[in-house]
Amino acid sequence: MLDPISDEYYMKLALQLASAATGQTGINPVVGCVLVKDGRIVGMGAHLKRGEAHAEIHALQMAGPEAKGSTAYVTLEPCSHHGKTPPCSDRLIREGVQRVVVAATDPNPLVAGSGLNRLRAHGIEVTSGLLEREANLLNETFNKFITSRRPFVTVKSASTLDGKIAAKTGDSKWITNSASRSFVHTLRHRHQAIMVGIGTVLADDPALTTRLDVPGLNPTRVVVDSTLRLSPDAQLVRDGAAPTVVLTTDRAPEARRRELEARGVTIIDCGPGPAVDLSATMARLGEREIGSLLVEGGGKLSGALLEQRLVDKLVLFFAPKIIGGGPLAPGNFDFAGFEAMQEAIRLERISLQQFEDDICITGYPRYGNEVQ
Amino acid sequence: MLDPISDEYYMKLALQLASAATGQTGINPVVGCVLVKDGRIVGMGAHLKRGEAHAEIHALQMAGPEAKGSTAYVTLEPCSHHGKTPPCSDRLIREGVQRVVVAATDPNPLVAGSGLNRLRAHGIEVTSGLLEREANLLNETFNKFITSRRPFVTVKSASTLDGKIAAKTGDSKWITNSASRSFVHTLRHRHQAIMVGIGTVLADDPALTTRLDVPGLNPTRVVVDSTLRLSPDAQLVRDGAAPTVVLTTDRAPEARRRELEARGVTIIDCGPGPAVDLSATMARLGEREIGSLLVEGGGKLSGALLEQRLVDKLVLFFAPKIIGGGPLAPGNFDFAGFEAMQEAIRLERISLQQFEDDICITGYPRYGNEVQ
Repeated sequence: MLDPISDEYYMKLALQLASAATGQTGINPVVGCVLVKDGRIVGMGAHLKRGEAHAEIHALQMAGPEAKGSTAYVTLEPCSHHGKTPPCSDRLIREGVQRVVVAATDPNPLVAGSGLNRLRAHGIEVTSGLLEREANLLNETFNKFITSRRPFVTVKSASTLDGKIAAKTGDSKWITNSASRSFVHTLRHRHQAIMVGIGTVLADDPALTTRLDVPGLNPTRVVVDSTLRLSPDAQLVRDGAAPTVVLTTDRAPEARRRELEARGVTIIDCGPGPAVDLSATMARLGEREIGSLLVEGGGKLSGALLEQRLVDKLVLFFAPKIIGGGPLAPGNFDFAGFEAMQEAIRLERISLQQFEDDICITGYPRYGNEVQ
Repeated sequence: MLDPISDEYYMKLALQLASAATGQTGINPVVGCVLVKDGRIVGMGAHLKRGEAHAEIHALQMAGPEAKGSTAYVTLEPCSHHGKTPPCSDRLIREGVQRVVVAATDPNPLVAGSGLNRLRAHGIEVTSGLLEREANLLNETFNKFITSRRPFVTVKSASTLDGKIAAKTGDSKWITNSASRSFVHTLRHRHQAIMVGIGTVLADDPALTTRLDVPGLNPTRVVVDSTLRLSPDAQLVRDGAAPTVVLTTDRAPEARRRELEARGVTIIDCGPGPAVDLSATMARLGEREIGSLLVEGGGKLSGALLEQRLVDKLVLFFAPKIIGGGPLAPGNFDFAGFEAMQEAIRLERISLQQFEDDICITGYPRYGNEVQ
């Protein structure tokens, strides 16, 4: 970083530390902390794993006695409550930190600011809101989960420029290039769970694991399967690479249910059917502490989630290809749709990324009639 | 321009002069010329209109006696033949130009290099190939026409991220934002003709004129209409804003044909039907000195042109919206399509442009089995 050294400079560093841990903290937020004293960095830390030390503690440990009189740059308001670990604000106070600069306050409106107040009450100078937007973006999944107890849902699709996810024959290998596909594995690493429809499982028998040039974390596999067509011989039942959860309905045959459960699959009932109740699904996944969900389903699942306003973010890969096939070739979002162009679901905060010749468009859906 | 002054610096200026005239030279190329003597620009010119002075002549006139001993930067090889105007190479020789730097040679392989040889034979130092790729890109439409006598075909589409050009009801107002739509009018200005299917005319009664904040050039309107359903009361028949050409088949009713011709519409027969022979169409348009064609048809026309490998360039606008509607909502490219993803038509030399939140993807189709 060749930016001028400033509060922002150190906070950016703290944000980078936080960002690096994305995907490895479960339902916990990612947090980074930098301690600076007399013009020198004396400690750096990040929260690396749920149940283990918070960012501030790692940084304080690195600083040792240098923590006294230092300034702490923390990407998220230090906690003031006993969770799985003692409150960080108490530790900052005890170590004699002189000033605390915070990016984002606690997203839970019931506790927001209480950590900062505790610091101020002990004579620590507190600045908050520096690079707040960047900090909130890093924790967009955490922020949704902590306030709603439902996972943040990211839908990924890969299509041609005519919006097709396969040829009319069903052939889809490969739409996107290897750079795009590799990025999808990074997305898997960064999500707690991955969701597909049973159609995808029956067609491709995928592993849905994270395959990168370096080891990655495998998300929990979630299959939407209203009548339990999932075979006990499917790769994601047999391989033991990650937990597998199947969402089904009362129409699921009891024998198959027992068979899958015997192989370690978790079956969750989501309504009477015929289709899996996707809204109930999100509540059930939240109860199981799944805070981030990557949907790699086909057009029907993506379309249904969008139609039911359950999608928080869209990551759309487009390969520079046109395949044709009209209604025979499946589209990226297959749902009944709107009568008027004005009603279309709009994507906001669009960003573009190129993976060689593929184009990735990321945005956040804003549903019609939504007041913002 | 704050680039270091060099041959490239002056050639870039000449390319800018050429580029500015795009759309106003008909089937002629755009050409820019800069004359430099003793470290000073002494003349600048561009070819502005077919039948009128070439770029070199304008620049030489500006330079007057300063032309003697100067260096000429020309984006296209000076002509050595008598066309509508006398050969520029002779004039450069007569004015005593000392050195000529050329970007692209004449794209017609039968004459390429003859202008340069003529200059060399008269003791002028000639350098060629500087920024050749940029120069050829500026004249991509001219280069196709001069070698094939068929128009360079650019297909424009505007769709949602699920590839739809309208809702299932047919509603399409508006898919893209005003910045994108304004850019389409710039594209119209830059093309000699604009093509739509009769379906679009019947649905929208469009004028297909160029509407910008400043006056623009209106392209010839070309309507693909196999059975002459075009009404004599249609806006593009009545308004006289630009020539209107209708491509039809032997199935066209004679009475309607006479009626339209009486109103100044040009009718061109393109085969026995039932559909208009699109390949024959291109030959007929070429015969009428239409060298560049912008297709703003619906998905059927765009799909048919692509299927028949008649498209040279694609300009695809995507609005950040998802409309749904499955097969009821029309797609941007409606054609039978391919069996395998590997066979899909690939776009090469992709470029991206953002118009506020809209995304414009430009590329050149490479058809399957094509050797390149």
